[in-house]
Amino acid sequence: MIEILRSTKQFDIFRKNLDKKTIGFVPTLGNLHRGHISLVKESLRNNDITIVSIFVNPKQFGPNEDYEKYPRTLGDDTNKLKELYRSEDLIGTDKQIAIFAPESIDEIYPDNFSVNISLPELSNKLCGLNRPGHFDGVSTVVYSLFSIVRPNKAYFGQKDFQQYLIIKKMIEDMRLDVQIVPMPIKREVDGLAFSSRNQYLSKEERADALILTRTLGEIKNVVKNTIWSEAKPAIDQIINESLKDTRWDYLTYLDSKNLENPVEKTYMLGLFGAFKLGDTRLIDNKLVEIKYA
Amino acid sequence: MIEILRSTKQFDIFRKNLDKKTIGFVPTLGNLHRGHISLVKESLRNNDITIVSIFVNPKQFGPNEDYEKYPRTLGDDTNKLKELYRSEDLIGTDKQIAIFAPESIDEIYPDNFSVNISLPELSNKLCGLNRPGHFDGVSTVVYSLFSIVRPNKAYFGQKDFQQYLIIKKMIEDMRLDVQIVPMPIKREVDGLAFSSRNQYLSKEERADALILTRTLGEIKNVVKNTIWSEAKPAIDQIINESLKDTRWDYLTYLDSKNLENPVEKTYMLGLFGAFKLGDTRLIDNKLVEIKYA
Repeated sequence: MIEILRSTKQFDIFRKNLDKKTIGFVPTLGNLHRGHISLVKESLRNNDITIVSIFVNPKQFGPNEDYEKYPRTLGDDTNKLKELYRSEDLIGTDKQIAIFAPESIDEIYPDNFSVNISLPELSNKLCGLNRPGHFDGVSTVVYSLFSIVRPNKAYFGQKDFQQYLIIKKMIEDMRLDVQIVPMPIKREVDGLAFSSRNQYLSKEERADALILTRTLGEIKNVVKNTIWSEAKPAIDQIINESLKDTRWDYLTYLDSKNLENPVEKTYMLGLFGAFKLGDTRLIDNKLVEIKYA
Repeated sequence: MIEILRSTKQFDIFRKNLDKKTIGFVPTLGNLHRGHISLVKESLRNNDITIVSIFVNPKQFGPNEDYEKYPRTLGDDTNKLKELYRSEDLIGTDKQIAIFAPESIDEIYPDNFSVNISLPELSNKLCGLNRPGHFDGVSTVVYSLFSIVRPNKAYFGQKDFQQYLIIKKMIEDMRLDVQIVPMPIKREVDGLAFSSRNQYLSKEERADALILTRTLGEIKNVVKNTIWSEAKPAIDQIINESLKDTRWDYLTYLDSKNLENPVEKTYMLGLFGAFKLGDTRLIDNKLVEIKYA
């Protein structure tokens, strides 16, 4: 059974009746692709109720970003979730999907909503440098959605790895009673990570977009197969060479635990890239274990 | 019965055993005076358990403020609460006071605590102008304490009126399950509002401190007894005259509901002053109903 709830009031009533059912939550901006669907699938497997929020959150878009043109496709999204529900053979079971798709911004930010939640140390790097205020918008809306949805588990894709770390730390610092579940990146056959922004790309840009994924893959291979003392200078060289292409916003590596520069005991390295194709900016990342001996 | 809890772990264990008891919360920086005591008294009256936190929160002090010298008097504070418990005739009853006095800063801000909670619209005025970051520190610590204490009611003195409004709005925006209870300002016989900072004053400064309270009282009388169209120019003149004394940080009036400039339908005016005496800065305020006809 799939329900669509268009206001917070409506949602609150729905929520009140869930008693002791376990609740999985997949917050999205809508325009669902296979990445999102993999989160919903995982939530369905592990919870009685799966709530998918669809809300294009103005606070996480900068003044010159694509808030206005961001694709709003509630009808299609609903159909995709219905199709998933059917294909997972859930019809007739107690498992339930609810779509929380607030009809207006006021549903999430009522009455001169004034709170801003930020995690400056984790935000002021990578995407945060090029998108000031973006992660404040993300943490604030995710907190707000958590406060409405009150899920047991929340599913986040690792494509937005920095976002995942920020929400994880927010949950910890704020002692929120939510378990965050990171899910692996979903990719097209040629390796490009699924993103709602891929559809902005021209044919040529779509071809060039592979530079992002391929470069990260190349770096990953070096780290994976080489002892770190040798890998580090090698990947520094790849990065320096790559950055001559000015379409890179950033291409770098950090400790995947805290986004700090890797230190001697760093176990898992995160490789992070952002690449501009015309007006479209895509991000991707890969994790790789460092080899010390 | 009075218990003292010195770590969050200890507190969590204590909290787990409270079942369905009602919990009143009085967050303080310690150095309790009659203002604080009036909050504790009110909480005792209305709740099974009253939790008084004593924590000098570094985040709410600016780099040139009195964090280091702020009086830490846990022994005296405990005695005052014991005395109150006795004088309120609570010995042998089920009513309980617990003092949550974290032994170190890490108890409240563990593991590179990174979250900052701000309410910029309410914070960037009055005390916020002269104390950048102060209210972020306040809302962040109060949120953190709420997340640990999980009270039903929280008591705040109206001397820090801006702080009260910020916490009230934070509770609302964040959908926190806490009822905020504002309590009237407690004053010395001569009218000076109780403050832990009063003890910093020299004899002469202590005498001059009355300028703060008296000026606010004078303005209040005008507003109370005069129709607003006439009161406004009269109080503007008092304020302009007063501000020639450069010891004022600010002296102004705002809508007490939202700290905006009063508009036609403003019901309750807030009169706000901050006054410097040597290194000490004192604040005070009064509320007064506007007379329109």
